[in-house]
Amino acid sequence: MSMRTNYCGLTNEELLGQTVSLCGWVHRRRDHGGVIFIDLRDREGLVQIVCNPDAVEVFKAAESVRNEFCLRVTGVVRPRPDGTVNNNLKSGKIEVVCDMLEVLNASVTPPFQLDDDNLSETTRLTHRVLDLRRPQMQNNLRLRYKVTMEVRKFLDANGFIDIETPMLTKSTPEGARDYLVPSRVNAGEFFALPQSPQLFKQLLMVANFDRYYQITKCFRDEDLRADRQPEFTQIDCETSFMSEQEIRDMFENMMRLIFKNTLDIDLPNPFPVMDYFEAMGLYGSDKPDMRVKLQFTDLTEVMKDVDFKVFSGAANMPNGRVVGMRVPGGANMPRSEIDAYTQFVAIYGAKGLAYIKVNEVAKGRDGLQSPIVKNLHDAALTQILALTGAQDGDLIFFGADKAKIVNDAIGALRVKVGHSEFGKNNGLFENVWKPLWVIDFPMFEYDEANDRWSATHHPFTAPKDGHEDLMESDPGNCISKAYDMVLNGWELGGGSVRIHRADVQSKVFRALKIDAEEAQLKFGFLLDALQYGAPPHGGLAFGLDRIVTMMTGAESIRDVIAFPKTQRAQCLLTQAPSAVDEKQLRELHIRLRAVEPVIKG
Amino acid sequence: MSMRTNYCGLTNEELLGQTVSLCGWVHRRRDHGGVIFIDLRDREGLVQIVCNPDAVEVFKAAESVRNEFCLRVTGVVRPRPDGTVNNNLKSGKIEVVCDMLEVLNASVTPPFQLDDDNLSETTRLTHRVLDLRRPQMQNNLRLRYKVTMEVRKFLDANGFIDIETPMLTKSTPEGARDYLVPSRVNAGEFFALPQSPQLFKQLLMVANFDRYYQITKCFRDEDLRADRQPEFTQIDCETSFMSEQEIRDMFENMMRLIFKNTLDIDLPNPFPVMDYFEAMGLYGSDKPDMRVKLQFTDLTEVMKDVDFKVFSGAANMPNGRVVGMRVPGGANMPRSEIDAYTQFVAIYGAKGLAYIKVNEVAKGRDGLQSPIVKNLHDAALTQILALTGAQDGDLIFFGADKAKIVNDAIGALRVKVGHSEFGKNNGLFENVWKPLWVIDFPMFEYDEANDRWSATHHPFTAPKDGHEDLMESDPGNCISKAYDMVLNGWELGGGSVRIHRADVQSKVFRALKIDAEEAQLKFGFLLDALQYGAPPHGGLAFGLDRIVTMMTGAESIRDVIAFPKTQRAQCLLTQAPSAVDEKQLRELHIRLRAVEPVIKG
Repeated sequence: MSMRTNYCGLTNEELLGQTVSLCGWVHRRRDHGGVIFIDLRDREGLVQIVCNPDAVEVFKAAESVRNEFCLRVTGVVRPRPDGTVNNNLKSGKIEVVCDMLEVLNASVTPPFQLDDDNLSETTRLTHRVLDLRRPQMQNNLRLRYKVTMEVRKFLDANGFIDIETPMLTKSTPEGARDYLVPSRVNAGEFFALPQSPQLFKQLLMVANFDRYYQITKCFRDEDLRADRQPEFTQIDCETSFMSEQEIRDMFENMMRLIFKNTLDIDLPNPFPVMDYFEAMGLYGSDKPDMRVKLQFTDLTEVMKDVDFKVFSGAANMPNGRVVGMRVPGGANMPRSEIDAYTQFVAIYGAKGLAYIKVNEVAKGRDGLQSPIVKNLHDAALTQILALTGAQDGDLIFFGADKAKIVNDAIGALRVKVGHSEFGKNNGLFENVWKPLWVIDFPMFEYDEANDRWSATHHPFTAPKDGHEDLMESDPGNCISKAYDMVLNGWELGGGSVRIHRADVQSKVFRALKIDAEEAQLKFGFLLDALQYGAPPHGGLAFGLDRIVTMMTGAESIRDVIAFPKTQRAQCLLTQAPSAVDEKQLRELHIRLRAVEPVIKG
Repeated sequence: MSMRTNYCGLTNEELLGQTVSLCGWVHRRRDHGGVIFIDLRDREGLVQIVCNPDAVEVFKAAESVRNEFCLRVTGVVRPRPDGTVNNNLKSGKIEVVCDMLEVLNASVTPPFQLDDDNLSETTRLTHRVLDLRRPQMQNNLRLRYKVTMEVRKFLDANGFIDIETPMLTKSTPEGARDYLVPSRVNAGEFFALPQSPQLFKQLLMVANFDRYYQITKCFRDEDLRADRQPEFTQIDCETSFMSEQEIRDMFENMMRLIFKNTLDIDLPNPFPVMDYFEAMGLYGSDKPDMRVKLQFTDLTEVMKDVDFKVFSGAANMPNGRVVGMRVPGGANMPRSEIDAYTQFVAIYGAKGLAYIKVNEVAKGRDGLQSPIVKNLHDAALTQILALTGAQDGDLIFFGADKAKIVNDAIGALRVKVGHSEFGKNNGLFENVWKPLWVIDFPMFEYDEANDRWSATHHPFTAPKDGHEDLMESDPGNCISKAYDMVLNGWELGGGSVRIHRADVQSKVFRALKIDAEEAQLKFGFLLDALQYGAPPHGGLAFGLDRIVTMMTGAESIRDVIAFPKTQRAQCLLTQAPSAVDEKQLRELHIRLRAVEPVIKG
């Protein structure tokens, strides 16, 4: 005989008159008019159990139960009396009249109420098991599962095969810091946990698997931020014999399907496509939040000869940039809000935040209100108004500095203003899902610290057709076949068409000043593989944690991971990491360094 | 326009007259009667491409191609001429007359022929990318994928949810050796890679996820054997509110479905069930190969007073055992074969292999042929014949020693004889799939080296109902709710009903002489969780690598893993593990020990 015939939360009027066995937890117990009501909870939801005093044994047992006791009950399903129907519950039209109540396990009093929404993250992560019983966490992890199943079904239907790649791999000190694993058998040597299966998936294409995917853990030992974890999950895909366009079509179809089948949301078809330079030019970001109806106007040329040194200085410096950002209706923005934005952009290195209130365009200089106007000549003012398309009542913010600072600061300001109460009240924010592709990334970016070019994406990304020679002759203007899928200002995933020819790969290494010996040492197995008729191939990887965080509206990716680490890379539940036995270290041929004092916070 | 309209191997007579674009590798090129034939290969198989000399450009290009060149061709599908149809190929009724041939990538000459079946494993693993192009490896990894998709579909349909558990976990020096990961942020501390998600899956049950699964990597830093890898993949499952019987029913249904839907094989329904003591008694193994029609007959009592000291000594020693194994028709087994078996059982510690040839039962002692017969009294001989059921022409092998040696040695001999030519020719081996459940394992086994009881399964396994008190009063007779699924002598998976009450869990720790402090340190988070109304729960884990190895008939689990490690835990392709920079070690607060000389082999 089964312990359970039905889930609590799914017990409904279709079962009227039937005897059911239910298992779950006491969510709440109420004594009312001599009758005990228990809201019994399982993963599907709540059901009301009625314990009448004439069922003496049951009633006695019911009197003993407390919140979070684990029970098994049997009883007959009957309609709730008139006026007690709860339409918020799937089981809200019925109740179960208990004729057997077994306490499967008692519970001590939980350290917090499950419906308390004001718990610290430390409390939640320390008592993660109870935290996970909360409906929001149940929903988050079930949605996460649904997303992965939709991904698997879609990729299966499109001929992709899940192939596992190793977790114990070779350390390649490129990119982020590796997590290392000392080898016991091979003294003095180390495995690295994979930062991504990048090279292995390319090898699988050379090995004729044609279409590969994997939903797999990746590891980066970086300093943690709010949306980072030491281990994170990637939906990793690669295909042979498809063009960039075909790859992008494939994966935007996948994303549309995920949103449709899990949240019943229709994403646009097709996704808009924007090249990298347009994204940086108009939004100061390669992952613009397209819900925000604000754009940059480039004013670098306009400001080259103005008296205002902040602008002309930036306009004339190498890599300098001056932009205006028109805020429709912004002339009414209170001074306190503008001051707050001035402090906000300072986070990104901006030394100030110039602005002009456009009171009346027709009045020219006299219709503009700003301390900087007197230092801008008429031609510049005319151009500012014309290029930004300013209207009466607008505000124009300015950014002037090195391009990177301008893009970061005014890009962040754009999002901040858009999401503000002001932005929402003035139609600057459209509350919808706004995906787009950002494409045509530069192959290389200049690494000033090390005075050399580094790969924008990674060194296996193919150059755009016709750009092969630029890799060495003019690396700054060499465009790649890399693409990112962006949604509401977040990068959901990114990828590229890869290099499939050994000679082209060698050129990239030369451009990156990686000599043949170093290349062979680090990537020899890839270079070898490319020699054996490697097929044209490409792919991309999505950040599952981030996608699910967005879809659930969770505040942190820790809310979509069952057992996450804190920002100090610790598991508060199991107390990992921890000290280990000297014997274990000896077997691994390592010893601890003299311990420097460490302040834990 | 797409690079490819069809897969080579799927191009067939349904496409007659149509123009197709195909991409793939030159499997073989033949020049015949002035025409060039290319067998073009992709993951779906081969197709014949015909390049006629009148298509000048195509023909010229075709002349230049060599094996493993990667090509794109377009052409019209036409029927093969009479007499050239190849029914071994899906594409064998057609050929493609090439009107465009593009070399997508050339190939250097491969170090071996893809169809060479006599490659060393070192060669195969060093050139793994080419090795993976071989049809057998393609099939193995595709079957592996199909198995996992069948598992996912089955578990999804039964309400199981895939939830990821951490890879960076806490080291608990129980069981096998952990792989350790030094923490950079927490100096002197280490993560461990999980040996299994055991505790996390139990926590997920306490957290009300009800049914969990995961197909996930596990890690054990053990000395490697033929069928072991440092990282291996487990199908890990757990459910709440199900009895042992229900759990077993669920997962044998899953296994039947896998075999049916991937290999079209019907496994028996239901699986036979055998308790641990019967398995050890009759087969000397807790994972008996039921294809072999040989059984042990226990003769310990019979041999207590015989003159033959090897038998009487074993029969009278503590933990001693004497068994006979009747081999029907074995009296004809050549002496050389018996000698070989004598050497074979020595591997398992047996000091010899006594046997009796049963020439004629009716003649009693005179019908028996063996040097040991003279030292066995009549009553013993009579009993041997009666209990084994010996018939004229049989052979009886004997094992006499400590029970463990007898079980290991004669258990292995049983399999060896069954699988031998002799066994197959004499009906001792049935070539079918023979699954079974082995249940009712003992809770504890005595660890002589450390003079204490240890957990047979793991310390979270529940005792059989009514056996709770035996845990402390008579641990040797305490039976657990553990179960193994066995197929053809391999353990496919195993699991148990878990302890869900903190007081019972504490009893187990006491029985294992783990004191409260140690228990709290190692498993505190589980003990804490059990306090909050933990539900009855249980589950099991399957070894995916092993299942797929069996299903494909591969010789080694390395043949069902894309990028396996050698028996020295090395990846010959990427040369992992490897030395790392001193800077990396410094960041991790570790240093290498003075290097002892290591001989690598």
